[in-house]
Amino acid sequence: MAELNETIHQPVRLRIMAALVALDAGSEVDFTYLRGLLDVTDGNLGAHLRKLEEAGYIAVNKTFVERKPRTYISATGAGRQVFTEHVAALESILKGK
Amino acid sequence: MAELNETIHQPVRLRIMAALVALDAGSEVDFTYLRGLLDVTDGNLGAHLRKLEEAGYIAVNKTFVERKPRTYISATGAGRQVFTEHVAALESILKGK
Repeated sequence: MAELNETIHQPVRLRIMAALVALDAGSEVDFTYLRGLLDVTDGNLGAHLRKLEEAGYIAVNKTFVERKPRTYISATGAGRQVFTEHVAALESILKGK
Repeated sequence: MAELNETIHQPVRLRIMAALVALDAGSEVDFTYLRGLLDVTDGNLGAHLRKLEEAGYIAVNKTFVERKPRTYISATGAGRQVFTEHVAALESILKGK
């Protein structure tokens, strides 16, 4: 039976990974953009990003732009791999297999 | 943004609904068959079935066959509808939308 990845299956994290994996490899999104896209609070998004970062599925790059702190997020190779596997598992399950 | 149904999104319940919806409308499966298919314990399956029944997504029919208790489960019309909507929301999310 197809296995679902519990870290990725959670709705907010599934959306984060889908948004990141849709980009070209290595492309980053900004924290504020992601927060607006997902319509979640800073704290909520931060907690889900930490979980994905701890699993090695995303890279978080904190930097300064014009002396203001900015956070950029991208999917790692491992993150892209597990997301692809998760989608395949979901498709298999949704067909009742 | 596509909304995920939290009741259905949980992995075991997603598998239960997918298995039931794959059957013809009105068709039932037996508790023991479902437990084997999902590889879960009696207690775990029972708890997830109660949650789906309370939401009105499945019908649970407890009966006796040759004086032995048997439980049959089927998806309701509402359950089929929300599952279909959930799959559409998932597909939209998985495309990064």
